[in-house]
Amino acid sequence: MPLVRVSVAQDIYNEHLQRISDAIHDSMVTTFDVPAKDRFQVLTRHAPNDIICAPEYLGIPHSGRVVFIQITCNEGRTLDMKKALFARLASSIEAGGFIKAADVIVSLVEVKKENWSFGNGAAQYAP
Amino acid sequence: MPLVRVSVAQDIYNEHLQRISDAIHDSMVTTFDVPAKDRFQVLTRHAPNDIICAPEYLGIPHSGRVVFIQITCNEGRTLDMKKALFARLASSIEAGGFIKAADVIVSLVEVKKENWSFGNGAAQYAP
Amino acid sequence: MPLVRVSVAQDIYNEHLQRISDAIHDSMVTTFDVPAKDRFQVLTRHAPNDIICAPEYLGIPHSGRVVFIQITCNEGRTLDMKKALFARLASSIEAGGFIKAADVIVSLVEVKKENWSFGNGAAQYAP
Repeated sequence: MPLVRVSVAQDIYNEHLQRISDAIHDSMVTTFDVPAKDRFQVLTRHAPNDIICAPEYLGIPHSGRVVFIQITCNEGRTLDMKKALFARLASSIEAGGFIKAADVIVSLVEVKKENWSFGNGAAQYAP
Repeated sequence: MPLVRVSVAQDIYNEHLQRISDAIHDSMVTTFDVPAKDRFQVLTRHAPNDIICAPEYLGIPHSGRVVFIQITCNEGRTLDMKKALFARLASSIEAGGFIKAADVIVSLVEVKKENWSFGNGAAQYAP
Repeated sequence: MPLVRVSVAQDIYNEHLQRISDAIHDSMVTTFDVPAKDRFQVLTRHAPNDIICAPEYLGIPHSGRVVFIQITCNEGRTLDMKKALFARLASSIEAGGFIKAADVIVSLVEVKKENWSFGNGAAQYAP
């Protein structure tokens, strides 16, 4: 895995959302030791009142065009890898247009390797 | 952070959902040591058959009008803080109408402080 | 608890989705020490481009008809229980039609027992 949940405002164009999806996957492959084939994402679009982001937090202003990226992944990545992932996500998503780097919000949820099944009822990552 | 996912039945009025959103945030600020500006929520509405809640569990009856609140937050809150949050969520949401205290279902997912980025590609909470 | 999030393609029939929901709950009751009354699920349907699954990963081919099952549950289940759950989920969902065993993707997120409220503002599982 990881399993990635991406939440955006519903006025996004399909093309922009596709670029965000690609940028997330590329960022994980490049910085987070995720195999290129390991892509599992759920993208959801929300009415403006249903995706709520602080107008400003920690000195960073947020527009109405935010993206929330919640990544469930295996535990064990270093802090440096997490920092590299965050940096890459923000820059590559901004490069795709529509979303600014300030509006890329990321949450990591770490789990044990044995907590996944990738099909056929097996625990492929279990020891 | 936290990042809060709120799931409700689709027949809820916008005004009630807004009150629930406010009640959740106020509860977290009041009992859970969350800064007032730290508000990140995704609200989703579901057809009756797509949000499934036990009619009764642990002696508590549930109606079709439930709210599931899943909060991803930093680890480290005490049990007393969690109890205070649960109590405040139930009472303040019920006070807003539409949802009864019995139908406020809460799930906490705790993560490391370094697992967040609040924009601009930085790990703002990392040591 | 657990709290189960089920994500499928939007072309699924209601009847099939209902069977998947039942199969998931039955699997958890049978293999994962979940009480029969303890059923909390959110089912979501997604456009084909919004639920993204690797065409193949770890040698397992995936069709466009995948189901992602993310289960937030208490920590403490053994690896054998997890393996039994995965196996049962895949076989029972495939038996219901529409989804093949290869396309049953499962993610477990484990939390502390004290991290739940099942209504009325109490932490029913806390020590």
